[in-house]
This record gives sequence, C-alpha cells and structure tokens, in this order.
Amino acid sequence: MEDIKAVQFENGKLKLIDQRILPSRFEYWYTDTEEGVFEAIRTMIVRGAPAIGGAAAYGAYFALLEANGSKEEFERKCLHLITARPTAVNLEWSVKRMMAKAEQCGYAPNELLKEADSIVKEDREMNIKLSEIGLSVIRKGDTILTHCNAGALATCGWGTALGVIRSAHRSGLDIKVYADETRPRLQGARLTAWELKEEGIDATLIPDSAAATLIRDGRIDLIIVGADRISADGDTANKLGTFALSIAAKAYGVPFYIAAPTSTIDFSTKDGKDIPIEERDWDEVRMIEGIDIAPKGMKVYNPSFDVTPHENITGIITEKGIIYPPFDKNIERIRNGETLG
Amino acid sequence: MEDIKAVQFENGKLKLIDQRILPSRFEYWYTDTEEGVFEAIRTMIVRGAPAIGGAAAYGAYFALLEANGSKEEFERKCLHLITARPTAVNLEWSVKRMMAKAEQCGYAPNELLKEADSIVKEDREMNIKLSEIGLSVIRKGDTILTHCNAGALATCGWGTALGVIRSAHRSGLDIKVYADETRPRLQGARLTAWELKEEGIDATLIPDSAAATLIRDGRIDLIIVGADRISADGDTANKLGTFALSIAAKAYGVPFYIAAPTSTIDFSTKDGKDIPIEERDWDEVRMIEGIDIAPKGMKVYNPSFDVTPHENITGIITEKGIIYPPFDKNIERIRNGETLG
Repeated sequence: MEDIKAVQFENGKLKLIDQRILPSRFEYWYTDTEEGVFEAIRTMIVRGAPAIGGAAAYGAYFALLEANGSKEEFERKCLHLITARPTAVNLEWSVKRMMAKAEQCGYAPNELLKEADSIVKEDREMNIKLSEIGLSVIRKGDTILTHCNAGALATCGWGTALGVIRSAHRSGLDIKVYADETRPRLQGARLTAWELKEEGIDATLIPDSAAATLIRDGRIDLIIVGADRISADGDTANKLGTFALSIAAKAYGVPFYIAAPTSTIDFSTKDGKDIPIEERDWDEVRMIEGIDIAPKGMKVYNPSFDVTPHENITGIITEKGIIYPPFDKNIERIRNGETLG
Repeated sequence: MEDIKAVQFENGKLKLIDQRILPSRFEYWYTDTEEGVFEAIRTMIVRGAPAIGGAAAYGAYFALLEANGSKEEFERKCLHLITARPTAVNLEWSVKRMMAKAEQCGYAPNELLKEADSIVKEDREMNIKLSEIGLSVIRKGDTILTHCNAGALATCGWGTALGVIRSAHRSGLDIKVYADETRPRLQGARLTAWELKEEGIDATLIPDSAAATLIRDGRIDLIIVGADRISADGDTANKLGTFALSIAAKAYGVPFYIAAPTSTIDFSTKDGKDIPIEERDWDEVRMIEGIDIAPKGMKVYNPSFDVTPHENITGIITEKGIIYPPFDKNIERIRNGETLG
C-alpha cells in the first residue's frame, strides 16, 4: 500500500488531495498561485494544522515568484496567507519560517522551494518519530478512540494521533479503533474512517455523542487526538468536540492524549483563553451536501475548534518525548531545546 | 398560531405529521391498520416517547377492528405493536392500557376509540401541567439548552422539555434557547429548530459538540431535556447525547433537568442498567439524504439512546411535581399516588 500524501509538489504545482470530496471520490487539486493556496486552505481542500503548514510553505514560494522582486509585495502576500484560517498555529509558523528563509537567502526562489520541501519532509519525519514515541502508551489489544482526522491527510504524512494508531497497528499491537464522525464537517466519517479502512485497521464509526457511553462502560482504553494549537500551559485547541470528550474521559478515568509535533506549541500564547477560535459558515450546520437539514434562516453557533484545559490531558505526545504534567514547566523545557525522557 | 398536533384521529384514520421530512416539507401521513401504525413508529414517521404512546393507542384500536372478535388475534397484534421500538416505555404502557380497557369493556371498539382519545388528551394536559410546574426553575432572561426534540412533535401536544420552554416564553420570561442538532437523525435541527421558529423563540442551533464550551463558559443557565424511560431510581434513558451533556453540566455546575410525564417512569425497572437500548440502522450514520458520508461498508455503532445516571440529574419535572433527590424515595412516593410539593 502506498502512503497517503496530502501535500505534494509536482511540475511547479502544489498537488493536494481534495479532502472535500472524500470518501466518495479521490481527486487531486492543483494550484501554482498564492491566492490558490489561500483558497485551498480557506475552503478546506487541505485541512489539519500540519498539512496546512505544508501547503502554506508552497504558497509563500508562489508569493515570491509573483512578487517579481518586490519584498513588500512578497511580505504582503505572506501575511495574507496567514489569515486563511485563524486557529492553527502551524500556518503562521510555516509562513514565518519561509519569510525568514527568504531574507536569509536573499530572496532566491530555488532556496525557498527547498525550504518548503524541507518543511514537508520534516513534518512527516517528526510524525513518524512521535508515533514511535507514542507506542509506549499503548498495550496489546487496546481499543483507542479518536476524534476528527489527525492522520496522513491532516499532515504532510503518516499522521499524529492517527500516526500513533498507524504505528501501533503496524507493530502488531492488535488494536481496535472507534472514530468519532466529527460534526459538522464529518472529518471522522469522511477521512479518518477512510484512512483506517485503507490501513486495514479494525475500526468502528460512531456519532460523536456515543463516545460518552463507550467511555463510561469501559470499552475505551485510551483516547488520542491531534491539536491545532497548544498554549504554553498545555491547553489545547483542537477540532470541536475534543473538549466534551476530555470531560467524559476525566469523569470516568480514561487516559486522554494529544499527539502533535512541537511546532504546534505556541509558546507566546499563555493559556487556552488566548487562542483565537474560528467561527465557520452557518451552512456547515444547516445543510449537508446542499440539502437543508434545518429551517431556512435558522441562527447557528459553529465554532470550528474548542479548547481542552490541560487538567483534562494525560500527556502530549511529541517528537521530543511525551509531555506530562506539570505542563507549563515541561513545555518550557521543550522551548529550551531539551528532549524529554 | 395553531398548536402543533403530531397525533390526530380523523375520519377513521390516524393522522400523523410525517416527521421524517420536516422542516423541508410539512405533510400528513395516514393509516388505518395496526401494521401501518407499527411501521410509522418503526420508521420514525412518529417519534418521541409520548407521541409514540398516542399513536400506538390507535394502533391497538385498529388491531381490535382487524381481529374480528378474536381476543387472541387482538392480543397478538397488540404485542406486535409493542415491539416496534424497544426503549420508550410509553409504547408498552399505552398498548397495555388499551388491552386492559378492552378486557374491561368487553372488546367494544367504540370504547377503545374513546380510550385512545383519552390517552392523547391526557398526555397534552399532563404536558401543559408539567410545563407550568417547570416554570419555577426558570428565571427571567435565562438561556436554556435542550437536546433532541421533546416538543409538541414528540408528544400528543405542547411538549415536555420544549413544553416548559414554550410556557416560559408565553409567560414573558424572555428566554433564549440553544438547540443541539442531535446526530444522527438531527431531530434538534429538523424538529426542535422548526418548533422554536414557529413559536417565535430566540433560538440558536449548535452541533452537539458545541454544548460543552457554552456550558463551561457560563453561557447556559440550565438544561432541560425529555425522557424515553425513567427507572425507579431516576436513571433516565433519552436520546443519544443526553448523557454526554449531563457530564459537562455536572463538571461545570449547570442545573440539568428532565421533563417528562410520570407515565415515562418504569417502576419495574430498578436502574438504568436494565433499560434496553435500541441500536438502529448503520446507514443513519453512514448516509444523509441518501448520500454517502462515510466509506461503503464501514462498521458503525449507533445506539438510539443513552442512560444518564441520576447523580447527574438536578430534578425531574413531572405533572405531579418536580422530583428531586433522593430520586428512589421520591419516585416511590409518586408510585404511591402522592403529589410532590
């Protein structure tokens, strides 16, 4: 089986798996402009914090080509890219890294393309590394619950939460997985279920609300989810529904892990209250596939993410080790370049 | 505005609002056979525990007409009706009441029709009564969260949880409502949102997972939901998602009320573990409006209900008063015919 690649660069074009139409159809979507990358991120052709970071890197490369030697134009376009979605920190992290590289290499397009390639390559390698580290929290025969899609599709390869699950499966740990469907955009049903099937893992799809009963009844050994932004004290913004899951896990004593590369940590955000939460289009809730499922004109509250407080988190699995409480102190150690034991 | 009537009897036929197609279309669905009523309940043309009870009463009446004087045939058909759905206790309660009446009145169709009319009339009256009693837990300006549909559509009129909300609105209490969309069948989006709009209540629809954040952030003053079966110790089976909501409410100190007529209490069920939970078709999760939203053949776990333990419940609003802890003792008082203070 060939590995799933959400973000690729081919013949001068960014080549993305169009994640809006999976699992019914598997199609690639191409662009070679900064605006095209912006739209791909905004409309969720590409989604998942690390995959957004990878795509944005090529967006910055296109921005440099389009800027025609104007540093101001390059910067303007880069700052525009960052606004495509507000919550995932990897987007800003990746574009700023590209901007720094541009300055350092004298705005050489070749060098910038190499940097984008590195971002993608490093992300995949980090995910494989953190997945191997994450194996230590899984026992043979465990049943794991996950939410949304933190898989190969959400990253530049392998996956984070689903990366740990993939590594566990390939290591012969004989795991079972429950996947939350993840309303409103159903990334669990559309993407995670698809990845789990492709990988041949014993998987069951559930409505998000069914997780609480499984957790109480002892049918879940541990929960692993991804992250869109982790603040300096360990509070974690992730797809809407993660927080509710963490409350149930805490109430019934089920271990609750985040899996994310350290690039997801925003050291400058003190705690979860400071993480901006994107609110998305009301029609994501009022319609499915163009069909009304609620009265016309109905008011909606549709936050894309929620914040899980660090008290509800057992550990954060990263490529530099598993961060356990006290999160603020151990995240500070990561910031200082330490690798955790 | 005319009151919504989910269950009516007209010209020898049971007349139901077809709840599968709301809010896109408002259509009535008619039947005059026991099998027709059975199918209407099974396929959720009529749903909601008290409305199912009302519809089933007419099903028992049709059964008597079809039995052609054979008591055995009448009984066989009645027992068949009871199997249409396993969790709601009102179904069994209503059919058994019709069977007892038949025996008592010498199997007179006229008497049985009157009994069915009484069941419907009493249910509506009980709901209005419990809704008025429920007003005591609401303060002016409160924001109320509800789950699924426990409205006029779920009952023989007025509603239970949504009945309390309706009464609060009509009393000028200036309330606001958040309605969970309620996956997988979206009764909140399709039915509750529609009823709230019809009633002119300030209402906002949310994905089920958004409730936890609203609860934590102090944006919900209280939660009111309906019930499909309440055991003798107060454990409550209600639509999937109720239990998760109750965990969040308990964790963040938000009052959590059940509103249901005492006919929903199953005195013979000791606790929630003994309540049978219906598992429904996997395609309710894998498809919406005939369109695939998950990979073909994906395994699903789709329980229709979950059980909220009585420790998570603040009070149960009934037509005989509000049942507060200790629930087992106070439910025993209801069983003994007492009215609570």
